[in-house]
Amino acid sequence: MAQNGSDAKRPKLADELAMFDEVFPMLMNDLEKHGVRDPETSGAVAWFKRAALYNVPHGKKNRGISVVQTYRHLVEDPTEENLKIARVLGWGVEFLQAYFLVADDIMDQSITRRGQPCWYKQEDVSLTAINDSFFLESTIYQMLKKYIREQPYYVNVLELFLEVNYQTVTGQCLDMTTALPEGNVDFTQFTMERYSAIVKWKTAFYSFYLPVALAMHMAGISDDDSHSRAKNILLQMGHFFQVQDDYLDCYGKPEVIGKIGTDIEDNKCGWLIVKALEIASKEQIEILKANYARKDELCVQKVKAVYKELDLEGVYRKYEDDSYRDLIKLINETSGNLPKDIFIDFAKKIFKREK
Amino acid sequence: MAQNGSDAKRPKLADELAMFDEVFPMLMNDLEKHGVRDPETSGAVAWFKRAALYNVPHGKKNRGISVVQTYRHLVEDPTEENLKIARVLGWGVEFLQAYFLVADDIMDQSITRRGQPCWYKQEDVSLTAINDSFFLESTIYQMLKKYIREQPYYVNVLELFLEVNYQTVTGQCLDMTTALPEGNVDFTQFTMERYSAIVKWKTAFYSFYLPVALAMHMAGISDDDSHSRAKNILLQMGHFFQVQDDYLDCYGKPEVIGKIGTDIEDNKCGWLIVKALEIASKEQIEILKANYARKDELCVQKVKAVYKELDLEGVYRKYEDDSYRDLIKLINETSGNLPKDIFIDFAKKIFKREK
Repeated sequence: MAQNGSDAKRPKLADELAMFDEVFPMLMNDLEKHGVRDPETSGAVAWFKRAALYNVPHGKKNRGISVVQTYRHLVEDPTEENLKIARVLGWGVEFLQAYFLVADDIMDQSITRRGQPCWYKQEDVSLTAINDSFFLESTIYQMLKKYIREQPYYVNVLELFLEVNYQTVTGQCLDMTTALPEGNVDFTQFTMERYSAIVKWKTAFYSFYLPVALAMHMAGISDDDSHSRAKNILLQMGHFFQVQDDYLDCYGKPEVIGKIGTDIEDNKCGWLIVKALEIASKEQIEILKANYARKDELCVQKVKAVYKELDLEGVYRKYEDDSYRDLIKLINETSGNLPKDIFIDFAKKIFKREK
Repeated sequence: MAQNGSDAKRPKLADELAMFDEVFPMLMNDLEKHGVRDPETSGAVAWFKRAALYNVPHGKKNRGISVVQTYRHLVEDPTEENLKIARVLGWGVEFLQAYFLVADDIMDQSITRRGQPCWYKQEDVSLTAINDSFFLESTIYQMLKKYIREQPYYVNVLELFLEVNYQTVTGQCLDMTTALPEGNVDFTQFTMERYSAIVKWKTAFYSFYLPVALAMHMAGISDDDSHSRAKNILLQMGHFFQVQDDYLDCYGKPEVIGKIGTDIEDNKCGWLIVKALEIASKEQIEILKANYARKDELCVQKVKAVYKELDLEGVYRKYEDDSYRDLIKLINETSGNLPKDIFIDFAKKIFKREK
């Protein structure tokens, strides 16, 4: 397969984002129609609309837009109709993400998300947020039924969303059964191997493989070989993305990343602590053990002091450079018939990001 | 369509239940295979297995078995293979129910369920139960993919589960936005109209329409007319079932129904309070207002005293008799080509139940 769609024709990111955003009101309008069709449910529909508006459209939307961008790489001169479908599928990924984040924030007892209080923290919401997360998930399938039911790739896309959901739920479980309750530090579980498993299952499938796979199905590429090549590259990209996320949780500026990192207090099995345990001295490990997983600013500072002694920032910078080189190599060697630019463009967006 | 499958050939309920139960270990075995295929997820798989064993197989299983029983009414001499599929779909309904119950118990802060502590009340579970409810839901789609992917009704069944999920989530939202926080009594919302809407959306679709509709799809009956006839009858049956459930919450014996009713304390818009408000005097309504929705045994007793003054038990008994007569009439007049025994058998199981 030759690479399709010349760079010249491709819209700038800001324009792509604007066109992507234009689709969202249509989806809210579809939701409102449920309340018109069944007036007895209008109270629920109004509530769900509020939940969707609060939780879905305020992210970076990288995942959603990736569906559209990948589709442009795969199909020359895409029709407006197909671009609209690609955007709807992109919003499907954003709804999936919103559903997980709403639930994760309750489970992690987080305070803020995307620069605003977490949904469950709204006074009149609280644990109702659990049902709202179910709603956000089920909206995906309402959208698919309305917009792609007649397409040959309908069942592939349906099964893909359902499969990726299962994978992500598995990852969330791995993550939560690793992070023990506050004060219960069990570093024996904090290995790079377990870390990699959590990242792959909790984040990489839905954030990296899913958007590209959706565009591939739309473009008629549904064979196992192509999907397993894409998955292999994208999961490696997802791994790096999460390492970076963990780095930013500690070293990113809260006003830029839109949240206050709490991985140290929350006993998270993040890249920094796993890497630290690999290279720290016995004495340093004792300090980490005594201060990790405590909701106490002084303890957090002591952990960060050890990170500084170990120059974890420098270790990370080197890891970042190596990862980028390895990834480009993997793309060049294993893309097969898939246009390499799908992956290269994706990688460029991620590396050197600050939020 | 003539009625198929003679009564003589049909197994007794206890035998049907035993054959239904025999399928569950196979489903647990399928789950374990995921841990073998991806050893890095084995910790999550072990956790999920525990969650499934705790939450799925200990109910009355009326819903699940209804799929099999309906299928026997629709198909003469069903093959063992198809009976197995009907049982798998029945377990799909049971997994759907378990997913809702696990989440409902967290949202309602319930203590016990089916005679044991609620899942989230297990010390090492807590809010992790939210993710476990996602797992229980996603298991349905894993099962469908494994057992009916090659069947002509695969997409119909997939869409049915997804649609019923959306309906139930809508009902849960209607319910929760009616039950205000403790102490906030707003009886203006407790109308029979709103009550009926909550019941229809939260319970009747998944408990009554879903099992029958699954068997219909399996039997090749997928036309809109048949489904809307069945839905109309089954939603009315579901309405009565919930009225009865609300009655049992107050008047059922905890050791028989397997839970301690808390509708009064929880400010639930149940049939008893809605009916009481319809027939009570101004003075009685004042007592209800002052004592409903308070987690205080004395207040609960005062509410129950008003119920006694109003002879709500007698009002309920009369309602039960009328409902049964109305339902039989509806079945006789609107079943169309569907065998009436599907509905009659279902109705018999529900009326006069004690748990």
